Amino acid sequence: MSVYLDYQAAKPVDKRVLEEMIPYFSEKFANPSSLHADGDIATEILELSRKKVADFINTPDPSNIIFTSSATESNNLALIGTALNQKRKGNHVIISEIEHISILNLGKHLEQQGFKVSRVPVDQYGIVKLDKLRKLITDQTILISITTASNEIGSLQPIEEIAQIATEKKVLFHTDAVASESTIPIDVQKIPIDLLTLSSNDIYGPKGAAALYLKKNVRVNPIIIGGGQERGMRSGSENIPGIVGFGKAAEIMKMEINSEAERLKKLRDKAIKNILETVPKSHLNGHPTKRLPNNAHFRFDYIEGESIILSLKDEKIAAATGSACSSKTLEPSHTLIATGLLHEEAHGSLLLSLGRFTKEADIDKIVNFIPQVVKRLRLLSPLTPSDLLNQYKEVE
Amino acid sequence: MSVYLDYQAAKPVDKRVLEEMIPYFSEKFANPSSLHADGDIATEILELSRKKVADFINTPDPSNIIFTSSATESNNLALIGTALNQKRKGNHVIISEIEHISILNLGKHLEQQGFKVSRVPVDQYGIVKLDKLRKLITDQTILISITTASNEIGSLQPIEEIAQIATEKKVLFHTDAVASESTIPIDVQKIPIDLLTLSSNDIYGPKGAAALYLKKNVRVNPIIIGGGQERGMRSGSENIPGIVGFGKAAEIMKMEINSEAERLKKLRDKAIKNILETVPKSHLNGHPTKRLPNNAHFRFDYIEGESIILSLKDEKIAAATGSACSSKTLEPSHTLIATGLLHEEAHGSLLLSLGRFTKEADIDKIVNFIPQVVKRLRLLSPLTPSDLLNQYKEVE
Repeated sequence: MSVYLDYQAAKPVDKRVLEEMIPYFSEKFANPSSLHADGDIATEILELSRKKVADFINTPDPSNIIFTSSATESNNLALIGTALNQKRKGNHVIISEIEHISILNLGKHLEQQGFKVSRVPVDQYGIVKLDKLRKLITDQTILISITTASNEIGSLQPIEEIAQIATEKKVLFHTDAVASESTIPIDVQKIPIDLLTLSSNDIYGPKGAAALYLKKNVRVNPIIIGGGQERGMRSGSENIPGIVGFGKAAEIMKMEINSEAERLKKLRDKAIKNILETVPKSHLNGHPTKRLPNNAHFRFDYIEGESIILSLKDEKIAAATGSACSSKTLEPSHTLIATGLLHEEAHGSLLLSLGRFTKEADIDKIVNFIPQVVKRLRLLSPLTPSDLLNQYKEVE
Repeated sequence: MSVYLDYQAAKPVDKRVLEEMIPYFSEKFANPSSLHADGDIATEILELSRKKVADFINTPDPSNIIFTSSATESNNLALIGTALNQKRKGNHVIISEIEHISILNLGKHLEQQGFKVSRVPVDQYGIVKLDKLRKLITDQTILISITTASNEIGSLQPIEEIAQIATEKKVLFHTDAVASESTIPIDVQKIPIDLLTLSSNDIYGPKGAAALYLKKNVRVNPIIIGGGQERGMRSGSENIPGIVGFGKAAEIMKMEINSEAERLKKLRDKAIKNILETVPKSHLNGHPTKRLPNNAHFRFDYIEGESIILSLKDEKIAAATGSACSSKTLEPSHTLIATGLLHEEAHGSLLLSLGRFTKEADIDKIVNFIPQVVKRLRLLSPLTPSDLLNQYKEVE
């Protein structure tokens, strides 16, 4: 692919990370539970990697990090694990309307299990309404789970305020930090978060590794039962090479996150400015400034996002219409609907997500190409109004 | 480590497997759910890998393979997933007394959830008693889960007969094939298995990948909820490099399993014969012939298995006392207790598990070393009877 602008869906493993992982596949491959010297080596690197992930979110105690196999699994452990652990205290869980599909579907799952689940609405920018959140909390509420940022439109959520509300009301607060972890630093000592989902791949580590941070004394019931690894909260022999890569990725990201975010913000703003200026009837979804530094999410009237992606595909440009996790359904994005868009509006979206290896030339290429694609598709679309068609034809 | 004889706890990734995985970390890294060309590449390799794993167990339909992150997760999906899916039909699950700790603990977990769990006893060799199994089945029985072979003492289980009994009684049959998959070919068309757990690492693939085979029309309730990957039965973005490695490992293992098993059986028998002959008061745990080709499990009177491991550690030899998954508890092996051994007998065990890279020189080294270690430990042990002490001293 000549231009890859789908970092929200998957990221390449950084070469520095892969290099660190290699010895743990075929040489230092032992099981940390083994009593021999090779087992000791595995235990040491497991705990060193745990410390690196802990440092990344500034928690002083590495044992607060529980390794899992994916962010989806971490979200499951957070929601199901907390619900089961706290069910004597109450049966009410609050999520938001713009969560990742794993949280959304966990909401439905918990309802099937007899829990009550509320969804906080968002404003037109996709930012949760704090006054509504406050009103939803009852004495039955055991958990609030709200993402740090929309994984689709990139809107940053007021998690500091949410954490304060949760603390006041003595409700546990979980946040899925996957969408933001490569551009927004997390400090769990500064913000009183109780549970936090991290993914390895989203910071350029390997797939197959992820974590759930649990604040001291917060416990969840396990969803995978077995040999009692990860303090009994997640059984199964540890995926050492994956965890080593995750640790290295966290170490690199901690050093580079601020400069990387600055660089990406400039590229993002260039893309947004150019596309909004050159494409008539184009709109930015999400908030103009309170958004992920690597997220540019557009809406083009009269055409379908999927057609744009297919046109880009022919040009070897990789982008998305919304979340990869739900891209193969024909449903419009639940996030865009939650911001108040109509179904037909929600269908015309394009997500450009930037990352560590995005160059200015990639942005130049896409901003040159998008106006042409949109024009071509609009000339074919039965929905395009005649004044716009005429405008396009005049320019030719 | 100069000699590694703990293949049951962890295996190195075959270099041919690692080579196949490498491009999928940093180059072909896209999400299979993405609509662009890179996403298509990911989908293709995902399905090709699924086919390789399907071929390995001779199932004609690759969609019968559900990828998971570990054998423990597959066992969870098999037991919890079936129990929840079938609970309208009945509430009774049968396991055996010599299962892997994940199945044992799942048994306890299901009991806490209101299911009734029976444990089939085994004979002195650790082989389940079929007459007892028959008697345990009631009209409430929904699942029988019995391992293909003990992961500790290596006893092969009569899974063909168990599958027939389950078929007759219209009860689902799950088997955890992890301990045997590197030495005993599996053919799900020959044996009517409904659910089967496979691990990638146990056939020299990477950790972090595993599978659950589900016979056509067998369904399980998911234990990880989210984007609906793996036919809705296991959500989470697919760990493509891990799955690619698993596929390659399955492909290699399918070709080499018979010759590998033959080679290992000879080495195993050499180890068994030598150690039983040269160490007085030594015993083989498990069946003399119905055992895994790579498993040699001994018991030495008057001394502790753990002391043997520590002595071997000083000599850079890696071995185990039992299952790595429960090695750090001080409990005696539930498997050995199930075969009728006393607690003090069960504590004196040594497991040598062989694998693809075990050489005859490794066996020569261990068979030379074990008699010396056992002698040294017995000379120090307060339990050693005086006639044996005298015998040892006479030789000097």
